Amino acid sequence: MTPTAARITAVDTFDIRFPTSRELDGSDAMNPDPDYSAAYVVLRTDAGDGHEGHGFTFTIGRGNDVQVAAIAALRPHLLGRPVAELCADPGSLNRDLIGDSQLRWLGPEKGVMHMAIGAVVNAVWDLAAKCEGKPLWRLLADASPEWLVSQVDFRYIADALTPADALALLTEGRTGAAGREELLRERGYPGYTTSPGWLGYSDEKLTRLAKEAVADGFTQIKLKVGADLQDDIRRCRTAREAIGPHIRMAIDANQRWNIGEAVEWIHALAPFDPYWIEEPTSPDDILGHASIRTAVAPVKVATGEHVQNRIVFKQLLQAGAIDVLQIDAARVGGVNENLAILLLAARFGVPVCPHAGGVGLCELVQHLSMFDYVALSGTTQDRVIEYVDHLHEHFVTPVVMERGHYTAPTAPGFSAAMHAQSIADYTYPDGAFWAADRATTTPHGRQGAAA
Amino acid sequence: MTPTAARITAVDTFDIRFPTSRELDGSDAMNPDPDYSAAYVVLRTDAGDGHEGHGFTFTIGRGNDVQVAAIAALRPHLLGRPVAELCADPGSLNRDLIGDSQLRWLGPEKGVMHMAIGAVVNAVWDLAAKCEGKPLWRLLADASPEWLVSQVDFRYIADALTPADALALLTEGRTGAAGREELLRERGYPGYTTSPGWLGYSDEKLTRLAKEAVADGFTQIKLKVGADLQDDIRRCRTAREAIGPHIRMAIDANQRWNIGEAVEWIHALAPFDPYWIEEPTSPDDILGHASIRTAVAPVKVATGEHVQNRIVFKQLLQAGAIDVLQIDAARVGGVNENLAILLLAARFGVPVCPHAGGVGLCELVQHLSMFDYVALSGTTQDRVIEYVDHLHEHFVTPVVMERGHYTAPTAPGFSAAMHAQSIADYTYPDGAFWAADRATTTPHGRQGAAA
Repeated sequence: MTPTAARITAVDTFDIRFPTSRELDGSDAMNPDPDYSAAYVVLRTDAGDGHEGHGFTFTIGRGNDVQVAAIAALRPHLLGRPVAELCADPGSLNRDLIGDSQLRWLGPEKGVMHMAIGAVVNAVWDLAAKCEGKPLWRLLADASPEWLVSQVDFRYIADALTPADALALLTEGRTGAAGREELLRERGYPGYTTSPGWLGYSDEKLTRLAKEAVADGFTQIKLKVGADLQDDIRRCRTAREAIGPHIRMAIDANQRWNIGEAVEWIHALAPFDPYWIEEPTSPDDILGHASIRTAVAPVKVATGEHVQNRIVFKQLLQAGAIDVLQIDAARVGGVNENLAILLLAARFGVPVCPHAGGVGLCELVQHLSMFDYVALSGTTQDRVIEYVDHLHEHFVTPVVMERGHYTAPTAPGFSAAMHAQSIADYTYPDGAFWAADRATTTPHGRQGAAA
Repeated sequence: MTPTAARITAVDTFDIRFPTSRELDGSDAMNPDPDYSAAYVVLRTDAGDGHEGHGFTFTIGRGNDVQVAAIAALRPHLLGRPVAELCADPGSLNRDLIGDSQLRWLGPEKGVMHMAIGAVVNAVWDLAAKCEGKPLWRLLADASPEWLVSQVDFRYIADALTPADALALLTEGRTGAAGREELLRERGYPGYTTSPGWLGYSDEKLTRLAKEAVADGFTQIKLKVGADLQDDIRRCRTAREAIGPHIRMAIDANQRWNIGEAVEWIHALAPFDPYWIEEPTSPDDILGHASIRTAVAPVKVATGEHVQNRIVFKQLLQAGAIDVLQIDAARVGGVNENLAILLLAARFGVPVCPHAGGVGLCELVQHLSMFDYVALSGTTQDRVIEYVDHLHEHFVTPVVMERGHYTAPTAPGFSAAMHAQSIADYTYPDGAFWAADRATTTPHGRQGAAA
């Protein structure tokens, strides 16, 4: 137990960057050379129980310093705050941060400032789950519907989801929860893998990784598309031949197209039976997604990893613009806003298939899907969490995949903590890795994060 | 003329904050205590002609340092760039900045990072207009339709506006341009004033300032609403009594409401004949604005000062969600994106009434409206630029109001430059004003930017 007098004593930030661009891991039509990075925050307390709250924003390199500055700007809201109150009601911090009118001007509720709020709010949930001695998914699944409703900000979504709607969904979600929790511990939560499909990979590597994915038990893979149509036709054919007709193949354009282009391109790839087209155009274009969806059915439309907040998700659902809603654990304002988004998805009956990969996104988002399964939507039908085999080794409690499924975490917390050594080595620009890299590189010999 | 070998040699940034919260200037239902601030940038060159490019993002206090960090992150894109090429084609910089995939992840095209792009792109336009020896509005109005089209990024808006559409609008816009330019120089561009209507003002101050506004020649004023309905009813009645039945009275809720609340509140204020309701709800809620508009007609719906980019404006127009489109010179990606937005407005036949006030927003945005009048929409019918009498004394070529009209600027540039002394005095935290303020204040005696 945390002593009631304990307070937040430090909000430490770190600019952590990994040189992933050098292997073309993570390359897609819009992001040819990402250096996967984390603007990382650690909350420390004087409780004396050893618990810290870890959180982060995922970025892809340059600008990670700006993201760190945004997290640091939230420090005054956290320092001195009583730990017990904070952990009993993370929603109070969420409201204070969203409601800081001067900071709000920089969004509102979008971009760098909003992701910074997400990082610290998630760090508080990590701390709360550690203090409670539970993995986050179980803390949420065990919580009362009333308390969960108290954690949601209904501003700007009440026309689609009222507190009473949310309470009804969460109350209904408790029916059979114990049985589902048992199933989850036995079988895990289904995943799909993007590892075969990065744009920078050769056809041979694509074929090999696609076959491995099927052998590993995955029932869905994903390919990046959108740079060159003839290449995409060849790559989709190659992948479909590798996996056979019964494995689902999603395709992902990473916002590359205008509306008309999207429709033409998807029609050209339709013979290879894509399951969904992800991010066909700007994540801001609600009406555009709705037109694309109408034009490309039965190919499903998915988006969300770059959707800025619950208000845009609300409209994607209201406009019938998506078949698949892709939450991201570190893009919006943290667990509280993702609760709102999961509730909206449940209200509209749209399946949630989270975005993951990056740095630590798999580790975080599994908790949200597992809570959703146990205590909200109650199903994994047509629901899969993205899995990418990047950078898990840097995490203290990395995800564990078995037969294409995420196994349920048992360690207390939000699985957000990185190894101290990884933080030290990859802190930019003075960590051991980057210092050594500079020492062995000519001034103009490297691009990427160092540029 | 700029020597062709001249390059950008420095990108200097400044965190400038004014203590406006102390007088409740600028107070509204969402922003009770703004400290009007500018994340300011100066581009310097080795041309030896004395020209600099000035630009800025307007913020309201805390977080201005984050905004400065974002502008600084763009420095590598500018340093060493040939001045002549840059000024001949600011669109090339705009494309490079929007297209930096690592930085793009932090938006895309929204929030802190996008506003930073706006600041430096606007600084380039300031420099270009100075090198050309023209005020920006005239540089734009004199430019060929083909060149203007080349400055617009059509990505994600081509379903509503093609390059051919834009060319047709701009070509048609040239008809009669010379005559309109002459009228503009004679009469100026109509403004409206928000100075009477800040939420923190007493009824007496409201009445006095409203009467003064009418006496000064304004034909429209604006009141902040949304904190308390009974207060708003009293204030709207007070204002309407002060200005009489023929002066337009806009009201502005600064995003305070959910959809249902907005409709009820506006109906309650309808007896005082509000001309438009501004920002009734979240700027992200396109479908919400459309429902509100249907419910509150004939009261018009206006929004835009917080609309993040051309893609959201496109949808507001496509959905029939607004009667009045409010561009902001420093919220989106600079002049290039505002050209796209002005073209979209012209295509849909919706009048543009810019947001201004803040720090230097009047100075900037007048150029865009004047260009629009002379060479695009060709009319000032139902078009007014917001005017607030704040902080103009800090600018080298401040706006000049006459009989409620903005007079056409004659000085070369974008009117963005602040006095060197103002920059020095109000740089936070070490400028003369803030240093003196700290010296005379107890540690906990001040809130606001210093908190």
